[in-house]
Amino acid sequence: MIETAYIREVGLRDGLQMVKTILPTAHKLAFARAAAEAGIPEIEATSFVPPHVIPQFADAAEVAVGLADLRTAAVSTLVVNLKGAVRAFDAGQSKVNYVVSASETHSLSNARRSTDAALEEFRLIVAERRARGLKATVSLCCGIATAFGCTLQGEVPEDRVVEIAETLARDGADELMAADTVGYANPRQVGHLFGRIAAATGGLPLAAHFHDTRGLGLANVVAALEAGVRRFDASIGGLGGCPFAPGASGNINTEDCAHLLEALGFDTGIDIDALIALRRKVESWLPGERFSGGVSRAGLPRTFHRAAARAA
Amino acid sequence: MIETAYIREVGLRDGLQMVKTILPTAHKLAFARAAAEAGIPEIEATSFVPPHVIPQFADAAEVAVGLADLRTAAVSTLVVNLKGAVRAFDAGQSKVNYVVSASETHSLSNARRSTDAALEEFRLIVAERRARGLKATVSLCCGIATAFGCTLQGEVPEDRVVEIAETLARDGADELMAADTVGYANPRQVGHLFGRIAAATGGLPLAAHFHDTRGLGLANVVAALEAGVRRFDASIGGLGGCPFAPGASGNINTEDCAHLLEALGFDTGIDIDALIALRRKVESWLPGERFSGGVSRAGLPRTFHRAAARAA
Repeated sequence: MIETAYIREVGLRDGLQMVKTILPTAHKLAFARAAAEAGIPEIEATSFVPPHVIPQFADAAEVAVGLADLRTAAVSTLVVNLKGAVRAFDAGQSKVNYVVSASETHSLSNARRSTDAALEEFRLIVAERRARGLKATVSLCCGIATAFGCTLQGEVPEDRVVEIAETLARDGADELMAADTVGYANPRQVGHLFGRIAAATGGLPLAAHFHDTRGLGLANVVAALEAGVRRFDASIGGLGGCPFAPGASGNINTEDCAHLLEALGFDTGIDIDALIALRRKVESWLPGERFSGGVSRAGLPRTFHRAAARAA
Repeated sequence: MIETAYIREVGLRDGLQMVKTILPTAHKLAFARAAAEAGIPEIEATSFVPPHVIPQFADAAEVAVGLADLRTAAVSTLVVNLKGAVRAFDAGQSKVNYVVSASETHSLSNARRSTDAALEEFRLIVAERRARGLKATVSLCCGIATAFGCTLQGEVPEDRVVEIAETLARDGADELMAADTVGYANPRQVGHLFGRIAAATGGLPLAAHFHDTRGLGLANVVAALEAGVRRFDASIGGLGGCPFAPGASGNINTEDCAHLLEALGFDTGIDIDALIALRRKVESWLPGERFSGGVSRAGLPRTFHRAAARAA
C-alpha cells in the first residue's frame, strides 16, 4: 500500500505576509485555484488578522468567500485570536488554523500576550465552535510556533513544547503542528521533538512547518517523516519569512518538497510540472521578491517517477 | 564519546572547475591555507588533468608543491588517469583521488573510455604506487561518479555501482566515495546504496559527494550518516557544478554542512565563523559567480554550540 503525505500550501498566507506587493484578490483566488488544480490537498488561503497589522490580508473575507465553492482542496485560514476565529467561522471556513508561540518572549513580542494567555484563547475558540454547533464540520489545527528555538529568547525547552502540545490536544485540537518559525531546527531535534509529541498526544495528526533558513528544511522533513509526521507546510517558490528571523529565507519550497516526498515513495497527489507553471505566474506577480528552489531551475531528474506510478 | 565527521573541501577543484575566472595560484594557496586554518581536515587542492582540458588547473604542480609544507590538513589531488597519478606522485601528494563513472554513457562522454577501462586504469595507478614503494605513505581514494543516476543515461543500476565498489576495494582503494554528480540522489536511495556498499566492502572508509541541485544535498548527508558514512565533500559557498548537469547548483555548501554535522553532535574540528570569513574572500575573488548557503546569510542559530563544547 502506498502511503500518502500531505502538503499544505501556505504561500498565500506565510508567503504573502512578507512581500512588498499587495496581491489583488483576483490573483489570490487564481493562485489558490491553480494550486488545487495541481493537486495540493490544503491551501491556507489567508489570515483573519486586523488589516492595520497586516494590510495584505485586508481582503481575508473576500478570499474566503471567493473560494467557498472550491471542492478539490481544503481551504483553511490562520487566526491569531477569538475575534479572527469568529470572522473565519462567519465566512464558512471548514478548517481554521490557530497558533501559540512556545517562546514566552516571541509570544509577548509577536502577539502581545503570554503563552498561557494564548492557550486560554484557544479554549475560547473551541468553546465558540461548540456553541455554534460546528464541531463536526469545522476542523481546528493548532500550531506551536518557535517550537525549535527562538531568535529573541534562544532555547525553548522541549518539555514546554510537549506540555503545550498535550494541553492543546486535551482542549480540542484536531491537528497539531510544530513550527520552526525562525529556521533553527536540525534533523536530530525534529525527530526527537515529534517523537515526544506523538507519544504525548495519541493518534492526533501531526504537521510540520519548516523554514529553509540554513539549508535544512528538507532534511527536517525527512526526520519528521521518520517520526510519523505526514503533513507539511510549504510555499510555492519558497516565499515567506518571519519578521523576527532576520536573514531568514522562506518556507520550504513546495515544488522541491513534493519532489522529495514522491521520491521517497509517498503519494502527494501533486503534479509538479503544474506547480512550476503556477510558480512562474506568481513570480510574474511579485517582482523583486526572492524565490528559491531547485526543481524549478534544474527540472525533475530523468529518473523521477511519481510514487503512485511506481506502485501501479 | 563524541564521534568525528570529516569534511573535504573541494571548492578549489570541483568549485573552480566551473567558474569563469582563472584564480591566481597565490589565491589558491591562500584559500587552502585559510581552509586548513579554519579546521578543515582535507583539502582537494587541484586536479592533474591536461591544461587544455581544464585551463584552471594548469598550475596543478605549483599548487601541490606550494602546499607541501601544510601539516594541519591533508592535501589531496584529483586525477583521471595514470598520467595524472604519475604527476601527483611526482609532486609528493600524500593523498590521490581517482574517479570512475558508473554510467557507461557518462564515462564515454566525460572521459572517453568505458567504465571497465576506467577500472583497469585504477589497477595501473595502484601498480604504479606499489612500484614506487608508496603504499604506506600515499592514500588512494576512488570515487564512483553518477552513482545515483545520470543526466545522459538516466538510471544507473545499483547492482553495477556495488560491483564497481567491490572491484575498487579488491584492487587496492583505501577509501571509496559515491558521488551524486548530477544531483539526482534522494535520501532513501542514499541510505540504500551506502548500506549495500558498506556491506560489500568491509570496513573501508566511505565518503559521499552530493550536489544541492534539488535542495536535497543536506538531507542526503543525513541519510549517508545513518548508513555509516563519515566523510563528505563540500565546497565553500556551494561553488561548483557539472558540465553534464544543466541547471545544476553546486556542491553542498561547506558552512551549512559543518553547521549540520555539529548540530547533529559530530565533531568536525571546524570554526564556522572562520569559514564564513574565507567565503567572503572567495566571493571577492570570483565576481559574477553564483554562491549559495544559509548560514553565511542568516548566521548561526543563537542555540548553536559546537558538538565538542556540548560534550565537554
